[in-house]
Amino acid sequence: MKDTAVPVPASDRTRVRRIAENARYDAATLHAIVDDAYLCHIAFSDDHGAHCIPTACWRSGGHLYIHGSNGSRLLKQLLRQTCCVTISHLDGLVLARSAFNHSMNYRSAMVYGRFEVVEEDAGKHAALEALMEKLAPGRQAEIRPGNDKEYAATTVLRISLAEAACKVRAGGPNDDAEDLAWPVWAGVLPFTRARVAPVADPACAVAAPAYVRNWQDQAQALAPIY
Amino acid sequence: MKDTAVPVPASDRTRVRRIAENARYDAATLHAIVDDAYLCHIAFSDDHGAHCIPTACWRSGGHLYIHGSNGSRLLKQLLRQTCCVTISHLDGLVLARSAFNHSMNYRSAMVYGRFEVVEEDAGKHAALEALMEKLAPGRQAEIRPGNDKEYAATTVLRISLAEAACKVRAGGPNDDAEDLAWPVWAGVLPFTRARVAPVADPACAVAAPAYVRNWQDQAQALAPIY
Repeated sequence: MKDTAVPVPASDRTRVRRIAENARYDAATLHAIVDDAYLCHIAFSDDHGAHCIPTACWRSGGHLYIHGSNGSRLLKQLLRQTCCVTISHLDGLVLARSAFNHSMNYRSAMVYGRFEVVEEDAGKHAALEALMEKLAPGRQAEIRPGNDKEYAATTVLRISLAEAACKVRAGGPNDDAEDLAWPVWAGVLPFTRARVAPVADPACAVAAPAYVRNWQDQAQALAPIY
Repeated sequence: MKDTAVPVPASDRTRVRRIAENARYDAATLHAIVDDAYLCHIAFSDDHGAHCIPTACWRSGGHLYIHGSNGSRLLKQLLRQTCCVTISHLDGLVLARSAFNHSMNYRSAMVYGRFEVVEEDAGKHAALEALMEKLAPGRQAEIRPGNDKEYAATTVLRISLAEAACKVRAGGPNDDAEDLAWPVWAGVLPFTRARVAPVADPACAVAAPAYVRNWQDQAQALAPIY
Protein backbone atom coordinates (compact mmCIF):
# COMPACT_ATOMS: atom_id res chain seq x y z
CA MET A 1 0.00 0.00 0.00
CA LYS A 2 1.31 3.45 -0.79
CA ASP A 3 1.81 5.65 2.22
CA THR A 4 0.57 9.11 1.38
CA ALA A 5 3.18 10.54 3.75
CA VAL A 6 5.95 9.24 1.50
CA PRO A 7 7.84 11.91 -0.47
CA VAL A 8 7.11 12.38 -4.13
CA PRO A 9 9.62 11.39 -6.82
CA ALA A 10 12.57 13.75 -7.20
CA SER A 11 12.19 13.90 -10.98
CA ASP A 12 10.11 12.60 -13.83
CA ARG A 13 12.90 10.09 -14.45
CA THR A 14 12.41 8.52 -11.03
CA ARG A 15 8.61 8.33 -11.09
CA VAL A 16 7.75 4.63 -11.04
CA ARG A 17 5.13 3.74 -13.66
CA ARG A 18 5.00 -0.07 -13.56
CA ILE A 19 3.22 -1.38 -10.42
CA ALA A 20 3.45 2.12 -8.99
CA GLU A 21 1.91 1.05 -5.67
CA ASN A 22 5.25 -0.61 -4.85
CA ALA A 23 7.16 2.66 -5.25
CA ARG A 24 8.92 4.25 -2.28
CA TYR A 25 10.60 7.65 -2.38
CA ASP A 26 11.62 8.14 1.25
CA ALA A 27 15.25 8.33 2.38
CA ALA A 28 14.85 5.68 5.09
CA THR A 29 13.85 3.02 2.57
CA LEU A 30 16.56 4.11 0.14
CA HIS A 31 19.29 4.11 2.77
CA ALA A 32 18.26 0.71 4.11
CA ILE A 33 18.40 -0.83 0.64
CA VAL A 34 21.81 0.70 -0.11
CA ASP A 35 23.21 -0.23 3.32
CA ASP A 36 22.16 -3.86 2.85
CA ALA A 37 24.15 -4.07 -0.41
CA TYR A 38 27.80 -4.79 -1.09
CA LEU A 39 27.36 -4.55 -4.87
CA CYS A 40 25.52 -2.22 -7.20
CA HIS A 41 25.03 -2.37 -10.97
CA ILE A 42 25.84 0.75 -12.98
CA ALA A 43 24.41 1.46 -16.44
CA PHE A 44 26.27 3.83 -18.74
CA SER A 45 26.99 4.10 -22.43
CA ASP A 46 30.00 4.48 -24.67
CA ASP A 47 30.72 4.02 -28.37
CA HIS A 48 29.94 0.31 -28.03
CA GLY A 49 26.49 0.91 -26.56
CA ALA A 50 25.09 0.35 -23.08
CA HIS A 51 27.05 -1.43 -20.37
CA CYS A 52 25.96 -2.78 -16.99
CA ILE A 53 28.89 -3.14 -14.60
CA PRO A 54 28.72 -4.59 -11.09
CA THR A 55 30.98 -2.97 -8.53
CA ALA A 56 31.36 -2.65 -4.78
CA CYS A 57 29.44 0.21 -3.19
CA TRP A 58 28.82 1.80 0.17
CA ARG A 59 26.92 4.79 1.55
CA SER A 60 28.03 7.73 3.59
CA GLY A 61 25.39 10.32 4.33
CA GLY A 62 23.49 11.26 1.19
CA HIS A 63 25.93 9.72 -1.30
CA LEU A 64 26.71 6.29 -2.71
CA TYR A 65 30.44 5.61 -3.12
CA ILE A 66 32.41 3.36 -5.45
CA HIS A 67 36.13 2.98 -6.02
CA GLY A 68 38.56 1.47 -8.45
CA SER A 69 41.87 1.71 -10.17
CA ASN A 70 42.78 5.04 -11.74
CA GLY A 71 42.97 3.25 -15.09
CA SER A 72 39.41 1.90 -14.94
CA ARG A 73 37.40 2.59 -18.07
CA LEU A 74 34.25 2.45 -15.97
CA LEU A 75 35.37 5.24 -13.67
CA LYS A 76 36.55 7.41 -16.57
CA GLN A 77 33.25 7.01 -18.39
CA LEU A 78 31.22 7.75 -15.29
CA LEU A 79 32.77 11.20 -14.97
CA ARG A 80 31.64 12.06 -18.50
CA GLN A 81 27.93 11.25 -18.34
CA THR A 82 24.91 10.76 -16.16
CA CYS A 83 24.25 7.15 -15.29
CA CYS A 84 21.88 4.89 -13.42
CA VAL A 85 22.95 2.91 -10.35
CA THR A 86 20.69 0.03 -9.34
CA ILE A 87 20.68 -2.19 -6.27
CA SER A 88 18.35 -5.17 -5.98
CA HIS A 89 17.73 -7.62 -3.17
CA LEU A 90 15.71 -10.76 -3.87
CA ASP A 91 13.66 -11.69 -0.80
CA GLY A 92 11.49 -14.54 -2.02
CA LEU A 93 9.45 -16.35 -4.63
CA VAL A 94 5.74 -15.61 -4.42
CA LEU A 95 3.70 -18.67 -5.37
CA ALA A 96 0.14 -17.76 -6.37
CA ARG A 97 -2.74 -20.06 -7.35
CA SER A 98 -2.58 -18.90 -10.97
CA ALA A 99 0.53 -18.92 -13.15
CA PHE A 100 -0.09 -15.29 -14.03
CA ASN A 101 -0.03 -13.99 -10.46
CA HIS A 102 3.30 -15.53 -9.49
CA SER A 103 5.76 -12.86 -8.41
CA MET A 104 8.90 -12.18 -6.43
CA ASN A 105 9.49 -10.23 -3.25
CA TYR A 106 12.31 -7.76 -3.63
CA ARG A 107 13.74 -4.42 -2.57
CA SER A 108 15.34 -2.33 -5.30
CA ALA A 109 16.71 1.17 -5.63
CA MET A 110 17.58 3.15 -8.75
CA VAL A 111 19.74 6.26 -8.51
CA TYR A 112 20.24 8.72 -11.36
CA GLY A 113 22.94 11.33 -11.58
CA ARG A 114 26.58 11.91 -12.30
CA PHE A 115 29.49 10.65 -10.25
CA GLU A 116 32.11 13.05 -8.97
CA VAL A 117 35.66 12.42 -7.82
CA VAL A 118 36.26 12.43 -4.08
CA GLU A 119 39.66 14.09 -3.77
CA GLU A 120 41.99 13.87 -0.79
CA ASP A 121 40.80 17.13 0.69
CA ALA A 122 37.17 16.05 0.27
CA GLY A 123 37.50 12.94 2.39
CA LYS A 124 38.98 10.26 0.14
CA HIS A 125 40.75 8.54 3.04
CA ALA A 126 37.66 8.67 5.24
CA ALA A 127 35.54 7.28 2.41
CA LEU A 128 37.80 4.26 1.95
CA GLU A 129 37.83 3.72 5.71
CA ALA A 130 34.02 3.77 5.66
CA LEU A 131 34.11 0.92 3.14
CA MET A 132 36.38 -1.08 5.46
CA GLU A 133 34.07 -0.31 8.38
CA LYS A 134 31.16 -1.69 6.37
CA LEU A 135 33.04 -4.88 5.44
CA ALA A 136 34.42 -5.57 8.92
CA PRO A 137 33.77 -3.09 11.72
CA GLY A 138 36.95 -2.27 13.61
CA ARG A 139 39.27 -3.90 11.09
CA GLN A 140 40.79 -0.64 9.84
CA ALA A 141 42.83 -0.38 13.05
CA GLU A 142 44.24 -3.90 12.60
CA ILE A 143 45.36 -4.00 8.99
CA ARG A 144 48.37 -2.64 7.22
CA PRO A 145 46.92 0.71 6.18
CA GLY A 146 47.10 2.05 2.67
CA ASN A 147 50.32 3.81 1.74
CA ASP A 148 50.67 6.89 -0.43
CA LYS A 149 51.24 4.85 -3.59
CA GLU A 150 48.14 2.74 -3.01
CA TYR A 151 45.96 5.75 -2.24
CA ALA A 152 47.29 7.51 -5.31
CA ALA A 153 46.44 4.49 -7.49
CA THR A 154 42.85 4.41 -6.24
CA THR A 155 40.04 6.62 -7.45
CA VAL A 156 36.99 7.17 -5.26
CA LEU A 157 33.76 8.41 -6.82
CA ARG A 158 30.45 9.32 -5.28
CA ILE A 159 26.95 10.03 -6.57
CA SER A 160 24.20 11.92 -4.80
CA LEU A 161 21.22 9.87 -3.66
CA ALA A 162 18.92 12.84 -4.23
CA GLU A 163 17.42 11.55 -7.49
CA ALA A 164 16.35 8.04 -6.65
CA ALA A 165 13.39 5.72 -6.52
CA CYS A 166 12.82 2.45 -4.72
CA LYS A 167 10.44 -0.40 -5.36
CA VAL A 168 9.56 -2.88 -2.65
CA ARG A 169 7.33 -5.92 -2.87
CA ALA A 170 6.66 -7.85 0.29
CA GLY A 171 3.96 -10.20 1.52
CA GLY A 172 2.04 -13.10 0.06
CA PRO A 173 0.43 -13.73 -3.30
CA ASN A 174 -2.29 -11.50 -4.72
CA ASP A 175 -4.61 -13.99 -6.36
CA ASP A 176 -7.74 -13.23 -8.30
CA ALA A 177 -10.81 -13.91 -6.13
CA GLU A 178 -12.05 -16.64 -8.46
CA ASP A 179 -8.75 -18.55 -8.05
CA LEU A 180 -8.69 -18.71 -4.25
CA ALA A 181 -10.33 -22.14 -4.11
CA TRP A 182 -7.87 -23.67 -6.59
CA PRO A 183 -6.36 -26.74 -4.81
CA VAL A 184 -2.73 -25.68 -4.76
CA TRP A 185 -0.38 -24.48 -2.02
CA ALA A 186 0.14 -20.73 -2.07
CA GLY A 187 2.60 -18.61 -0.17
CA VAL A 188 6.16 -17.36 -0.17
CA LEU A 189 9.46 -19.21 -0.45
CA PRO A 190 11.82 -16.67 1.18
CA PHE A 191 15.49 -16.08 0.55
CA THR A 192 18.05 -14.35 2.69
CA ARG A 193 21.73 -13.61 2.26
CA ALA A 194 23.28 -15.97 4.79
CA ARG A 195 26.79 -16.00 6.21
CA VAL A 196 28.76 -19.20 5.91
CA ALA A 197 31.61 -20.23 8.27
CA PRO A 198 34.72 -18.06 7.81
CA VAL A 199 37.66 -19.62 5.99
CA ALA A 200 41.05 -18.58 7.34
CA ASP A 201 43.96 -18.11 4.98
CA PRO A 202 46.12 -21.26 5.48
CA ALA A 203 49.12 -18.98 6.03
CA CYS A 204 47.35 -17.09 8.83
CA ALA A 205 48.21 -17.97 12.43
CA VAL A 206 46.46 -14.96 13.99
CA ALA A 207 43.40 -15.66 16.13
CA ALA A 208 40.07 -14.62 14.63
CA PRO A 209 38.72 -11.30 15.97
CA ALA A 210 35.13 -10.93 17.16
CA TYR A 211 33.76 -9.84 13.78
CA VAL A 212 35.06 -13.10 12.31
CA ARG A 213 34.03 -15.33 15.23
CA ASN A 214 30.54 -13.80 15.24
CA TRP A 215 30.15 -13.71 11.45
CA GLN A 216 27.41 -16.34 11.33
CA ASP A 217 25.62 -15.08 14.44
CA GLN A 218 25.21 -11.72 12.74
CA ALA A 219 23.46 -13.48 9.88
CA GLN A 220 20.89 -14.92 12.22
CA ALA A 221 20.08 -11.49 13.52
CA LEU A 222 18.99 -10.37 10.04
CA ALA A 223 15.25 -10.76 9.82
CA PRO A 224 14.11 -11.88 6.38
CA ILE A 225 11.54 -9.71 4.67
CA TYR A 226 8.81 -11.65 2.95
CA MET B 1 44.42 -18.94 -13.04
CA LYS B 2 43.34 -18.72 -16.64
CA ASP B 3 42.77 -22.08 -18.32
CA THR B 4 44.25 -21.95 -21.78
CA ALA B 5 41.59 -24.40 -22.96
CA VAL B 6 38.89 -21.81 -22.25
CA PRO B 7 37.28 -20.25 -25.35
CA VAL B 8 38.31 -16.80 -26.43
CA PRO B 9 35.95 -13.82 -26.10
CA ALA B 10 33.17 -13.71 -28.68
CA SER B 11 33.83 -10.07 -29.50
CA ASP B 12 36.02 -7.17 -28.62
CA ARG B 13 33.14 -5.93 -26.47
CA THR B 14 33.29 -9.00 -24.26
CA ARG B 15 37.05 -9.12 -23.82
CA VAL B 16 37.70 -8.53 -20.12
CA ARG B 17 40.43 -5.94 -19.56
CA ARG B 18 40.35 -5.32 -15.81
CA ILE B 19 41.82 -8.26 -13.79
CA ALA B 20 41.72 -10.32 -16.98
CA GLU B 21 42.95 -13.45 -15.20
CA ASN B 22 39.47 -13.75 -13.66
CA ALA B 23 37.78 -13.88 -17.07
CA ARG B 24 35.89 -16.97 -18.21
CA TYR B 25 34.43 -17.40 -21.68
CA ASP B 26 33.19 -21.01 -21.57
CA ALA B 27 29.51 -21.94 -21.80
CA ALA B 28 29.55 -24.11 -18.68
CA THR B 29 30.58 -21.20 -16.46
CA LEU B 30 28.12 -18.87 -18.16
CA HIS B 31 25.20 -21.29 -17.87
CA ALA B 32 25.95 -22.02 -14.21
CA ILE B 33 25.97 -18.31 -13.36
CA VAL B 34 22.71 -17.67 -15.23
CA ASP B 35 21.02 -20.76 -13.80
CA ASP B 36 21.87 -19.69 -10.25
CA ALA B 37 20.13 -16.33 -10.79
CA TYR B 38 16.51 -15.30 -10.48
CA LEU B 39 17.23 -11.68 -11.37
CA CYS B 40 19.36 -9.94 -13.95
CA HIS B 41 20.11 -6.26 -14.47
CA ILE B 42 19.64 -4.81 -17.96
CA ALA B 43 21.35 -1.63 -19.17
CA PHE B 44 19.80 0.27 -22.06
CA SER B 45 19.36 3.90 -23.07
CA ASP B 46 16.54 6.20 -24.06
CA ASP B 47 16.05 9.95 -24.36
CA HIS B 48 16.58 10.26 -20.59
CA GLY B 49 19.96 8.50 -20.65
CA ALA B 50 21.07 5.11 -19.37
CA HIS B 51 18.83 2.92 -17.27
CA CYS B 52 19.59 -0.19 -15.24
CA ILE B 53 16.49 -2.31 -14.65
CA PRO B 54 16.30 -5.49 -12.57
CA THR B 55 13.97 -8.16 -13.85
CA ALA B 56 13.34 -11.88 -13.51
CA CYS B 57 15.31 -14.10 -15.87
CA TRP B 58 15.79 -17.73 -16.77
CA ARG B 59 17.74 -19.75 -19.31
CA SER B 60 16.66 -22.25 -21.89
CA GLY B 61 19.39 -23.61 -24.12
CA GLY B 62 21.56 -20.84 -25.47
CA HIS B 63 19.22 -17.96 -24.59
CA LEU B 64 18.35 -15.88 -21.56
CA TYR B 65 14.64 -15.12 -21.23
CA ILE B 66 12.70 -12.30 -19.59
CA HIS B 67 9.01 -11.44 -19.58
CA GLY B 68 6.66 -8.65 -18.73
CA SER B 69 3.51 -6.80 -19.54
CA ASN B 70 2.94 -5.84 -23.16
CA GLY B 71 2.88 -2.22 -22.03
CA SER B 72 6.32 -2.33 -20.42
CA ARG B 73 8.58 0.50 -21.53
CA LEU B 74 11.57 -1.71 -20.78
CA LEU B 75 10.47 -4.42 -23.18
CA LYS B 76 9.63 -1.93 -25.92
CA GLN B 77 13.03 -0.25 -25.62
CA LEU B 78 14.87 -3.56 -25.63
CA LEU B 79 13.50 -4.42 -29.06
CA ARG B 80 14.94 -1.20 -30.48
CA GLN B 81 18.56 -1.42 -29.39
CA THR B 82 21.39 -3.65 -28.29
CA CYS B 83 21.76 -3.87 -24.55
CA CYS B 84 23.85 -5.40 -21.81
CA VAL B 85 22.46 -7.97 -19.38
CA THR B 86 24.46 -8.56 -16.21
CA ILE B 87 24.12 -11.14 -13.46
CA SER B 88 26.25 -11.02 -10.32
CA HIS B 89 26.52 -13.33 -7.36
CA LEU B 90 28.39 -12.18 -4.27
CA ASP B 91 30.16 -15.13 -2.64
CA GLY B 92 32.21 -13.52 0.09
CA LEU B 93 34.33 -10.75 1.52
CA VAL B 94 38.05 -11.31 1.11
CA LEU B 95 39.97 -9.90 4.07
CA ALA B 96 43.63 -9.31 3.25
CA ARG B 97 46.44 -8.09 5.52
CA SER B 98 46.59 -4.74 3.72
CA ALA B 99 43.67 -2.43 3.10
CA PHE B 100 44.56 -2.27 -0.59
CA ASN B 101 44.33 -6.03 -1.20
CA HIS B 102 40.86 -6.49 0.26
CA SER B 103 38.49 -7.90 -2.33
CA MET B 104 35.25 -9.80 -2.86
CA ASN B 105 34.56 -13.24 -4.23
CA TYR B 106 31.92 -13.20 -6.93
CA ARG B 107 30.63 -14.77 -10.11
CA SER B 108 29.35 -12.39 -12.77
CA ALA B 109 28.20 -12.65 -16.37
CA MET B 110 27.69 -9.91 -18.94
CA VAL B 111 25.71 -10.60 -22.09
CA TYR B 112 25.57 -8.24 -25.08
CA GLY B 113 23.05 -8.36 -27.87
CA ARG B 114 19.51 -7.55 -28.84
CA PHE B 115 16.39 -9.14 -27.42
CA GLU B 116 13.83 -10.71 -29.73
CA VAL B 117 10.16 -11.50 -29.15
CA VAL B 118 9.28 -15.14 -28.50
CA GLU B 119 5.97 -15.55 -30.32
CA GLU B 120 3.42 -18.28 -29.72
CA ASP B 121 4.71 -20.45 -32.56
CA ALA B 122 8.27 -20.03 -31.33
CA GLY B 123 7.60 -21.51 -27.91
CA LYS B 124 6.16 -18.69 -25.79
CA HIS B 125 4.07 -21.11 -23.69
CA ALA B 126 7.00 -23.46 -23.19
CA ALA B 127 9.24 -20.55 -22.21
CA LEU B 128 6.86 -19.40 -19.49
CA GLU B 129 6.51 -22.99 -18.26
CA ALA B 130 10.31 -23.17 -18.06
CA LEU B 131 10.24 -20.16 -15.74
CA MET B 132 7.70 -21.92 -13.52
CA GLU B 133 9.83 -25.07 -13.55
CA LYS B 134 12.79 -23.00 -12.37
CA LEU B 135 10.79 -21.38 -9.55
CA ALA B 136 9.13 -24.58 -8.33
CA PRO B 137 9.73 -27.84 -10.20
CA GLY B 138 6.45 -29.67 -10.89
CA ARG B 139 4.24 -26.75 -9.91
CA GLN B 140 3.02 -26.04 -13.44
CA ALA B 141 0.77 -29.11 -13.26
CA GLU B 142 -0.83 -27.93 -10.00
CA ILE B 143 -1.66 -24.29 -10.64
CA ARG B 144 -4.48 -22.63 -12.52
CA PRO B 145 -2.76 -22.33 -15.89
CA GLY B 146 -2.61 -19.15 -17.86
CA ASN B 147 -5.66 -18.35 -19.97
CA ASP B 148 -5.66 -16.79 -23.42
CA LYS B 149 -6.13 -13.29 -22.06
CA GLU B 150 -3.20 -13.65 -19.66
CA TYR B 151 -0.90 -15.11 -22.31
CA ALA B 152 -1.90 -12.34 -24.71
CA ALA B 153 -1.08 -9.69 -22.11
CA THR B 154 2.41 -11.10 -21.53
CA THR B 155 5.44 -10.51 -23.72
CA VAL B 156 8.34 -12.94 -23.63
CA LEU B 157 11.74 -11.83 -24.90
CA ARG B 158 15.00 -13.71 -25.27
CA ILE B 159 18.60 -12.79 -25.95
CA SER B 160 21.34 -15.04 -27.28
CA LEU B 161 24.09 -15.96 -24.84
CA ALA B 162 26.61 -16.09 -27.71
CA GLU B 163 28.25 -12.74 -26.93
CA ALA B 164 29.05 -12.97 -23.26
CA ALA B 165 31.85 -12.83 -20.74
CA CYS B 166 32.10 -14.01 -17.17
CA LYS B 167 34.34 -12.98 -14.33
CA VAL B 168 34.88 -15.21 -11.33
CA ARG B 169 36.94 -14.56 -8.24
CA ALA B 170 37.27 -17.33 -5.68
CA GLY B 171 39.72 -18.24 -2.97
CA GLY B 172 41.56 -16.38 -0.28
CA PRO B 173 43.38 -13.06 -0.15
CA ASN B 174 46.33 -12.26 -2.39
CA ASP B 175 48.58 -10.32 -0.11
CA ASP B 176 51.89 -8.74 -0.98
CA ALA B 177 54.75 -10.91 0.31
CA GLU B 178 55.97 -8.19 2.64
CA ASP B 179 52.56 -8.02 4.34
CA LEU B 180 52.21 -11.72 5.21
CA ALA B 181 53.61 -11.30 8.71
CA TRP B 182 51.27 -8.44 9.59
CA PRO B 183 49.46 -9.51 12.79
CA VAL B 184 45.89 -9.55 11.51
CA TRP B 185 43.45 -12.33 10.68
CA ALA B 186 43.15 -12.96 6.95
CA GLY B 187 40.69 -15.08 5.05
CA VAL B 188 37.22 -15.10 3.56
CA LEU B 189 33.85 -14.29 5.10
CA PRO B 190 31.55 -16.22 2.74
CA PHE B 191 27.96 -15.52 1.77
CA THR B 192 25.38 -17.80 0.29
CA ARG B 193 21.78 -17.30 -0.77
CA ALA B 194 19.92 -19.25 1.88
CA ARG B 195 16.33 -20.41 1.93
CA VAL B 196 14.20 -19.39 4.87
CA ALA B 197 11.13 -21.34 6.12
CA PRO B 198 8.19 -21.10 3.68
CA VAL B 199 5.30 -18.84 4.67
CA ALA B 200 1.89 -20.17 3.66
CA ASP B 201 -0.82 -17.77 2.56
CA PRO B 202 -3.18 -17.53 5.58
CA ALA B 203 -6.09 -18.33 3.25
CA CYS B 204 -4.41 -21.53 2.04
CA ALA B 205 -5.59 -24.87 3.49
CA VAL B 206 -3.78 -27.05 0.97
CA ALA B 207 -0.90 -29.19 2.26
CA ALA B 208 2.57 -28.12 1.20
CA PRO B 209 4.01 -30.14 -1.71
CA ALA B 210 7.52 -31.60 -1.60
CA TYR B 211 9.19 -28.58 -3.20
CA VAL B 212 7.82 -26.44 -0.36
CA ARG B 213 8.50 -28.94 2.45
CA ASN B 214 12.06 -29.45 1.17
CA TRP B 215 12.72 -25.78 0.42
CA GLN B 216 15.30 -25.35 3.17
CA ASP B 217 16.93 -28.73 2.62
CA GLN B 218 17.67 -27.72 -0.94
CA ALA B 219 19.50 -24.67 0.39
CA GLN B 220 21.80 -26.83 2.45
CA ALA B 221 22.73 -28.82 -0.63
CA LEU B 222 24.17 -25.70 -2.25
CA ALA B 223 27.90 -25.62 -1.67
CA PRO B 224 29.19 -22.13 -1.11
CA ILE B 225 31.98 -20.95 -3.38
CA TYR B 226 34.68 -19.03 -1.58
